[in-house]
Amino acid sequence: MTSLADCWAMDAQDPLAALRERFVLPDAMIYLDGNSLGALPKATEARVRDVIAAQWGKDLIKSWNQHDWIGLPRRVGAKIAALIGARPHEVVVADSTSLNVFKALHAALSLRPGRRVILSDEGNFPTDLYMAQGLAELLDDKHELIVVPPEGIADALNDDVAVLMLTEIDYRTGRKHDMKALTAAAHAAGALTIWDLAHSAGAFPVDLNGSDADFAVGCGYKYLNGGPGAPAFIFIAERWQQAASQPLFGWMGHDAPFAFDLDYRPRQGPGESIDRFLVGTPPILSLAALEAGLDQFAGVDMAEVRRKSIALGDLFIALVEQELAGHGLTLASPRDGNRRGSQVSFRHPEGYPIMQALIARGVVGDFRAPDILRFGFTPLYVRYQDVWEAVQRLRVVMVEQDWQRPEYRRRAAVT
Amino acid sequence: MTSLADCWAMDAQDPLAALRERFVLPDAMIYLDGNSLGALPKATEARVRDVIAAQWGKDLIKSWNQHDWIGLPRRVGAKIAALIGARPHEVVVADSTSLNVFKALHAALSLRPGRRVILSDEGNFPTDLYMAQGLAELLDDKHELIVVPPEGIADALNDDVAVLMLTEIDYRTGRKHDMKALTAAAHAAGALTIWDLAHSAGAFPVDLNGSDADFAVGCGYKYLNGGPGAPAFIFIAERWQQAASQPLFGWMGHDAPFAFDLDYRPRQGPGESIDRFLVGTPPILSLAALEAGLDQFAGVDMAEVRRKSIALGDLFIALVEQELAGHGLTLASPRDGNRRGSQVSFRHPEGYPIMQALIARGVVGDFRAPDILRFGFTPLYVRYQDVWEAVQRLRVVMVEQDWQRPEYRRRAAVT
Repeated sequence: MTSLADCWAMDAQDPLAALRERFVLPDAMIYLDGNSLGALPKATEARVRDVIAAQWGKDLIKSWNQHDWIGLPRRVGAKIAALIGARPHEVVVADSTSLNVFKALHAALSLRPGRRVILSDEGNFPTDLYMAQGLAELLDDKHELIVVPPEGIADALNDDVAVLMLTEIDYRTGRKHDMKALTAAAHAAGALTIWDLAHSAGAFPVDLNGSDADFAVGCGYKYLNGGPGAPAFIFIAERWQQAASQPLFGWMGHDAPFAFDLDYRPRQGPGESIDRFLVGTPPILSLAALEAGLDQFAGVDMAEVRRKSIALGDLFIALVEQELAGHGLTLASPRDGNRRGSQVSFRHPEGYPIMQALIARGVVGDFRAPDILRFGFTPLYVRYQDVWEAVQRLRVVMVEQDWQRPEYRRRAAVT
Repeated sequence: MTSLADCWAMDAQDPLAALRERFVLPDAMIYLDGNSLGALPKATEARVRDVIAAQWGKDLIKSWNQHDWIGLPRRVGAKIAALIGARPHEVVVADSTSLNVFKALHAALSLRPGRRVILSDEGNFPTDLYMAQGLAELLDDKHELIVVPPEGIADALNDDVAVLMLTEIDYRTGRKHDMKALTAAAHAAGALTIWDLAHSAGAFPVDLNGSDADFAVGCGYKYLNGGPGAPAFIFIAERWQQAASQPLFGWMGHDAPFAFDLDYRPRQGPGESIDRFLVGTPPILSLAALEAGLDQFAGVDMAEVRRKSIALGDLFIALVEQELAGHGLTLASPRDGNRRGSQVSFRHPEGYPIMQALIARGVVGDFRAPDILRFGFTPLYVRYQDVWEAVQRLRVVMVEQDWQRPEYRRRAAVT
């Protein structure tokens, strides 16, 4: 039996405990949804105010040079690179994850001419699949998206597969793919890989180069704490940077954007050509907020983050099973912490109203159709005692059948 | 002869004079570059702080519903619609202008099957041409971008042209196309139109529906004062909304984004289907800043804005010719204010160092290759006395040959 006192003891020994002070966390709320929107770093407000008031307000257009606004996509990209096992010049920040999937897919397909298939799995986030469908239609259906169950990937890899596109962590169950093994399997079949790191970057140490990954994308607003709708990133392995191209020819990807040539010429040069994955004018306010989010990782040992993440998830599973046996909650996540991301999900046929009732009691997770209750554990700011308290409130919701109230069945625009 | 006293008198009678108080303008600077980056509205800092501290910080993920973050692309779009002669549901805010050009181009081409040509002119902003080149390559060169001189457009319209894509205001010279006449000519040839309103929206009254326009795009960071790299907008005429599609299939364009279907199904329904032009998660901080910019137009008579814009430009031309005759500055903009946007440009072979010297003296315009000195007059915050003062400082630069200093020849990353 694990007690609240045990949880206090774990918090007292947590080497990451002090990091919580870097974030704004409402008193009454236990926030277990950092995998959907990361919490606000205390530094962000001042950072954005500085960009607005001191840079935009005082120096106006001169800020592009004077405050190196033009360098932000690369500078912030380099800070992400440090978290995902990439070299500084292998990552830029641009657009949304969806759009970066499109660019990476096109680049991968052109590097594998003659191969027809984009292979993905049912655990991929839908927007990645949609982008592949859009691209395949655009290319006159000469390519095809094939979606298999996660356990069927290895068998589906053959010499018709141009690219294997996967999200490392299943957004519903938290199941973690073996990036290194699957990349090796794809390469053995002659295919390239695109890894979506939406639920990986900032959640645990990612090793793109150690896994020999080709392309990756990811979002800034989950574990990177960059703010709602923060810009996304794209990784292109150094070995592909000269050959890789993408068809969204924007002026920020031009070799000389301020020459205003009438013809597009992609950015050239070692360590520079990744800029051809930029399109339009970079969103400076959002980039500044994302940079503030990334600065919270200064001095943080990602191996320690991973240890705590697994411990928080293990504790949650143990406490739910200890306190809530017989209430119909089924573990949807791998029990083995090494095979999970930084979330734990349970299934329940009444998952939607249960989650609404829980949110009304101050424990914020989220629901994913059809029956998933999803709880994210961000090691930078979630405490062991929060896990205890969350399970206690879930217990009240289940025991009192609080979720039966009609208002909890009302569907909101965003779930 | 126009004197400084005359300019003071014009300011005293200016019905828009009080609007200047809505903006942050550095004391020592005369800012004539609002056509590149609009000035900071005083309201923006508090608006963004509220979204960061009170919404993101306190309500976290719940803000998507509670503060209607999910509705921002449409709500801010409707505010832009009011400035460009569109219905509220004909405009959404999304991505960058470049990406919206791509979407509009693809939509237009699919509505005109069998036609091969994207027609544009040499006065178009390069990124629009690049996007067309990228799309044409992607479509296996079954389509072709043809770029003609602005005066050759009418002659180039034939039954092979699918779409006429033009920027209304030439970014270098400020020359204004006749949107209504060219749209009619395109339609007479069976082609559709895409208007880039980068230098139009917020600068003068635009009448998309009155011109029978099909598609339009534009940027948020120039005359709309939305901040550096603010998100862009796209207009789709109501009559095309059910039939128009674009290939960047993102979850925000899905008919039921939170059903997490594996297959893309574009948003349906009258007044709703424009959402299929959305792609990824909307950038909330940037959208909030753009909304604050748009709110500065509350109660502003756009016809009055146009009158002042022309008067400022006419005054600048008159003063440059009065004070600087014989210094080699040649008018690059139409002399007739009705044929100009809200800028005036002069050519000079030493344009680059002259502009740097002028900026060093506190008059901020910009330079556009090869020889254009560009001065933007934003009627919301530029005064007649500023025009006088700008010309006096330009006079010093030219008479003293101040621009000959070597440091003014050094090229910055952004020009």
